[in-house]
Amino acid sequence: MSRWEPNARDRLERAAVELFIDQGFAETTVPQITARAGLTTRTFFRHFADKRAVLFARDEELPALVARLAADAPASLSPMRVIAHALETVAATRLEGQRAYLRTRRTVIQADEGLRERELRKLSALSDAINQGFRDRGVDELTSLLAAQLAVTVFSVTISRWLDQDEDEDGEQPLSALVHDTLRALRSVTADPAEHPHGA
Amino acid sequence: MSRWEPNARDRLERAAVELFIDQGFAETTVPQITARAGLTTRTFFRHFADKRAVLFARDEELPALVARLAADAPASLSPMRVIAHALETVAATRLEGQRAYLRTRRTVIQADEGLRERELRKLSALSDAINQGFRDRGVDELTSLLAAQLAVTVFSVTISRWLDQDEDEDGEQPLSALVHDTLRALRSVTADPAEHPHGA
Repeated sequence: MSRWEPNARDRLERAAVELFIDQGFAETTVPQITARAGLTTRTFFRHFADKRAVLFARDEELPALVARLAADAPASLSPMRVIAHALETVAATRLEGQRAYLRTRRTVIQADEGLRERELRKLSALSDAINQGFRDRGVDELTSLLAAQLAVTVFSVTISRWLDQDEDEDGEQPLSALVHDTLRALRSVTADPAEHPHGA
Repeated sequence: MSRWEPNARDRLERAAVELFIDQGFAETTVPQITARAGLTTRTFFRHFADKRAVLFARDEELPALVARLAADAPASLSPMRVIAHALETVAATRLEGQRAYLRTRRTVIQADEGLRERELRKLSALSDAINQGFRDRGVDELTSLLAAQLAVTVFSVTISRWLDQDEDEDGEQPLSALVHDTLRALRSVTADPAEHPHGA
């Protein structure tokens, strides 16, 4: 069965996540995933290195993508505007419409320590890439480092707020609105002088 | 040799880190550490669960400490002032004077993937604890989450700047000055509206 399988990747992803939820990540095997998806293990390994990769494959290009967005943004844009623009782009092109899947994915990851660590490493690699993107724009070292970490904070907090919304909630906000709301909240938290009354 | 050993903990820490640098973390055994320190493995295991714990034992109380600092701060202080105060306290009581050791520790951690992951988990646990500390003060969920992540960003960026300074540099800044300088830089990065000219 080496012929092209329509939507093989999506079917494998869906089958894997269902099994991870039903019986646990550690207990799930690749043959179980392919059996549920009605595909062969050969097809599985054409798309994923292992079962863990099913959960992280979509994010693999993310560091390169955001570094490119940062590097390509008009030179006149401040770091926070670059971040806002990059997050909007990632939200619109890669996340909108995927909410149900991403909620389930989050449940799977939170239940397994190894997967939580992998998620932390993913965010750390993302931060490193954004940092490099800012450095390539000629932004100074300290500003680049802070901006990169802020970008990851806004990214992860926004996604977590978006996924926390009830599925049937009337007032559900689109991801792009939440990006801007989180950025506003960040600005409000940091606007305080943060100095003691008696000075630094 | 079960009698009390003066400075046993410090001697073990120093011996362990020297060996990790000389021959690698993976290649170093507990008996090698105790031999270099002139102590018994029994003494080692009175202080540390394993060789990895040597590098992280000092940080174990950090989440509880910062959560307490956040919870105990005067109710009138804004999140950024609480963060500044907590970081100053941690800097003064736990980090100042330890720079040479912490530089070496960083070199060891950066050389080993497992240790880098453990360091990321440490920072993630720290963020969770600070978040809880703010929630306990009655701070809203979004502000708490952002403030906690900002605190960890300022903490890690400040320490990394402090450790990056050349040992023999004349203009070496004390850690407390760097805490405030990093907070100022953070405020400056986030002060920008981050909105596109055409609006959110």
